[in-house]
Amino acid sequence: MDGIRALVFDVFGTVVDWRSTIIREGRELGRQKGLDVDWAKFADTWRAGYAPAMNRVRTGQLPWTPLDRLHRMILDGLLEDFHITGMSEDDKEHLNRVWHRLDPWPDSVEGLRRLKNRFVIATLSNGNMALLVNMAKYSGLPWDCVLSAELARHFKPDAEVYRMAAVLLDLLPEQLLMVAAHESDLRAAHEVGLRTAFVARPLEYGPNGTADKGTGSRFDLTATSFIDLAEELEI
Amino acid sequence: MDGIRALVFDVFGTVVDWRSTIIREGRELGRQKGLDVDWAKFADTWRAGYAPAMNRVRTGQLPWTPLDRLHRMILDGLLEDFHITGMSEDDKEHLNRVWHRLDPWPDSVEGLRRLKNRFVIATLSNGNMALLVNMAKYSGLPWDCVLSAELARHFKPDAEVYRMAAVLLDLLPEQLLMVAAHESDLRAAHEVGLRTAFVARPLEYGPNGTADKGTGSRFDLTATSFIDLAEELEI
Repeated sequence: MDGIRALVFDVFGTVVDWRSTIIREGRELGRQKGLDVDWAKFADTWRAGYAPAMNRVRTGQLPWTPLDRLHRMILDGLLEDFHITGMSEDDKEHLNRVWHRLDPWPDSVEGLRRLKNRFVIATLSNGNMALLVNMAKYSGLPWDCVLSAELARHFKPDAEVYRMAAVLLDLLPEQLLMVAAHESDLRAAHEVGLRTAFVARPLEYGPNGTADKGTGSRFDLTATSFIDLAEELEI
Repeated sequence: MDGIRALVFDVFGTVVDWRSTIIREGRELGRQKGLDVDWAKFADTWRAGYAPAMNRVRTGQLPWTPLDRLHRMILDGLLEDFHITGMSEDDKEHLNRVWHRLDPWPDSVEGLRRLKNRFVIATLSNGNMALLVNMAKYSGLPWDCVLSAELARHFKPDAEVYRMAAVLLDLLPEQLLMVAAHESDLRAAHEVGLRTAFVARPLEYGPNGTADKGTGSRFDLTATSFIDLAEELEI
């Protein structure tokens, strides 16, 4: 891993546990509003809408749209499908911004702090800048720099996003290590010349979910947590 | 100051003391290389080349060029004018990157830490992203987010830069407070609807320099340091 200067991180699922947070906030909302909703299913359905919504932008069906807005478009459909009523516009916006309040996995903050001692650490997420900045502040994620697909006006896995990270950090692609729990993200980063670290997040899709195992491709590193990653990088 | 959500900072001169750092590193280089150079004059001349170089980009004479590259173009001329010889390419690049290693003013880090407790704090500088990220790491500047003119491909005081900050932070212009030691920067921010805080840096151009006093226009706030600014904002 000689020559690595910066680590760029996928965020949803890799750094933060979107599913547990949405379920917890949903249950709280359900109690307040007297709603009977399967919040695990709600969370999974919301997340399942993410790739198709981004693909509408990636294929040109929609103009560039920040993720906050795509999340809201999906949410508006979900509120109908799950028969969730009695929500004011403020309630809906607050719920939509649950993506700004996602809890980190237990090792994320400590692991990032360690990795930051040796490397530039930055997000490289499809989340828009405001979402990522607010999340970092909420969860104490100590990024050196917030980089978003929004800056390239392309969503991962488009090559433009990975290339942009190298340009903005003024590094060669091979000086960047892309860290993600998703094999497709790492494969796309590898295509552009970044090095790759798979971090397993077996609970991303819940106890019965099918998270990537990191066995579908070869990666430069595989780790079980950010602390494990720091140890593999000898920090 | 109700409704302020984020503080965006000019960096060179406002957060960091470019002049003292360049003089100190220059003297060290002079000792190593046996050079007889007036490093204060060298620093002032380098900085004096900054606005004209940016204006070549702003007027379309040059295509978009990151500040690191403009600094290098100016430096190459200075090395001739100051009869500085015996510099390898690595030496020149290292000297050019003194702008990545600028020391903060004595109140900057503590003041930013306090301001960060209440607000999003971000750079809004003509420095390129890599320069600002490296400087933050070098000096421990605790930014929530690094924003650069590079992201707008315009230099301040072009309106595009200030507008971009509001868009990327998903805030209204009036929810941003631009903090700078330079009146022209604040006037341009005000034109776009940002609120403005002048922080006096009387030594920016040295003991005999003519730093802005903050009296040429009205600003929403004026302060003598970032700690004073935090107190005015009641943090």
